[in-house]
Amino acid sequence: MAKAPASAWRTIPAEDLLVIDYEGGGRTIVQLAPAFAPVHVANIRALAGAGYWKNASVYRVQDNYVAQWGTNDDKAALPAGVVKRPPAEYTRPARGLAIRPFAYADSYAWKVGHAQGWPVALYRDGTASLTHCYGIVGVGRDLAPDTGMGGELYAVIGHAPRPLDRNIAIVGRVIEGIENLSALPRGTETLGFYKEGTVAKRIAGVALASALPPSERPSFQYMTETSPSFASYIQVRANRKDDFYQVPAGGLDICNAPVPVRRTPAP
Amino acid sequence: MAKAPASAWRTIPAEDLLVIDYEGGGRTIVQLAPAFAPVHVANIRALAGAGYWKNASVYRVQDNYVAQWGTNDDKAALPAGVVKRPPAEYTRPARGLAIRPFAYADSYAWKVGHAQGWPVALYRDGTASLTHCYGIVGVGRDLAPDTGMGGELYAVIGHAPRPLDRNIAIVGRVIEGIENLSALPRGTETLGFYKEGTVAKRIAGVALASALPPSERPSFQYMTETSPSFASYIQVRANRKDDFYQVPAGGLDICNAPVPVRRTPAP
Repeated sequence: MAKAPASAWRTIPAEDLLVIDYEGGGRTIVQLAPAFAPVHVANIRALAGAGYWKNASVYRVQDNYVAQWGTNDDKAALPAGVVKRPPAEYTRPARGLAIRPFAYADSYAWKVGHAQGWPVALYRDGTASLTHCYGIVGVGRDLAPDTGMGGELYAVIGHAPRPLDRNIAIVGRVIEGIENLSALPRGTETLGFYKEGTVAKRIAGVALASALPPSERPSFQYMTETSPSFASYIQVRANRKDDFYQVPAGGLDICNAPVPVRRTPAP
Repeated sequence: MAKAPASAWRTIPAEDLLVIDYEGGGRTIVQLAPAFAPVHVANIRALAGAGYWKNASVYRVQDNYVAQWGTNDDKAALPAGVVKRPPAEYTRPARGLAIRPFAYADSYAWKVGHAQGWPVALYRDGTASLTHCYGIVGVGRDLAPDTGMGGELYAVIGHAPRPLDRNIAIVGRVIEGIENLSALPRGTETLGFYKEGTVAKRIAGVALASALPPSERPSFQYMTETSPSFASYIQVRANRKDDFYQVPAGGLDICNAPVPVRRTPAP
């Protein structure tokens, strides 16, 4: 990865970076996925811009599953511009995604691979979805598919819960500071919720990187799947053989091939 | 699961339960897998019996990978009966395992399924291995395959690192108290190791359940893959459709089908 040339990297737009700051310090940065859930992502940008998460918290931490945060208040007033009942953006047409498919079987989808820097599953009906890998961020919802507007978000902190694919809106992935969610004490109530009146962590504020002063704006790059460096990365992940790995796997699942992401190097 | 009859459950022998108690409270219980790594498991029983882990600690916590514990001292004297260089029990013959294979493709192995209450991968060369799922416990080792005698153990606390299959000895799985490992602060050094002189958690003692007084002996049961209840469990995991799951997965990976384990009910 260190050897990948500059041409292998794409800078993530600042409006695609959601910066979550915790009370008492610590930060989690989420890269948003507007190409897969445009209405939900627009909602999240509007919520961040309006300071919606000012008194939010992480209130659910379920082992080997998810950490969830937000206001935990479905009666909170919504800022202007937020679509209260966004469409169920759980899949999108595969058309338009130049996916680089894996040569290896997937247990869930017709094909998997990467497109636009994201892990993607393709289905036989011509739809595509992001895949619920470690660190993926989705929109909590109630039973009805149109009940999640983006105010309550979760990150995967365990084995990829792929059965959620196509059943919930994925809006991004954690690219820095996952340990501020994954290492929290597990909630003791059903589904890892914290006891009424307690929370795992308080959120000081959430902002888009584009809303921060330029000098404080974090910047990240991902390795594009169209680069030879990425092809070589996948090849090595699937066939690692070295002093430790005596038997190459000869296969790979989409969630064991996280897209390489790095801080943008100083010019 | 609550509906499964008593005949679906098998009691785990007390000599297959490794009980890890932490200083300051908390406990993690590991079910050992003698059918897959007999020499390593015999070592672990001997180490527990000799109090080898009395001053041990959890000294490595790598996010989305493993938490590792032991003496972290490869010069520690070994108790009698411990094989210093056990054979590389990374696979075993598939023969003798009445595996219930999945109907779904696996990204790594020829077939996967369950046998004797464990998640198993079968390979075309006639070998079988346990699979590195969340909670699986393996033996830390150096580069040479015969360098792990069982004194340093790790548990998977992230997405299943399946490329480790066939490259390391799996000796069991955590069946209770995984959160005492998975929710620990991540180590700040390379590979999640803690800084020299610091540890994540101190271990007060490790004992086999069979060595505890009967009144303090924990007892667990697993659901056997030969039961109709288990078949129905797999069926539901792969095809969940309810008020929340609008689109059944139609597939399943071996690590999203953890073998149900419960405390043995009072008679």
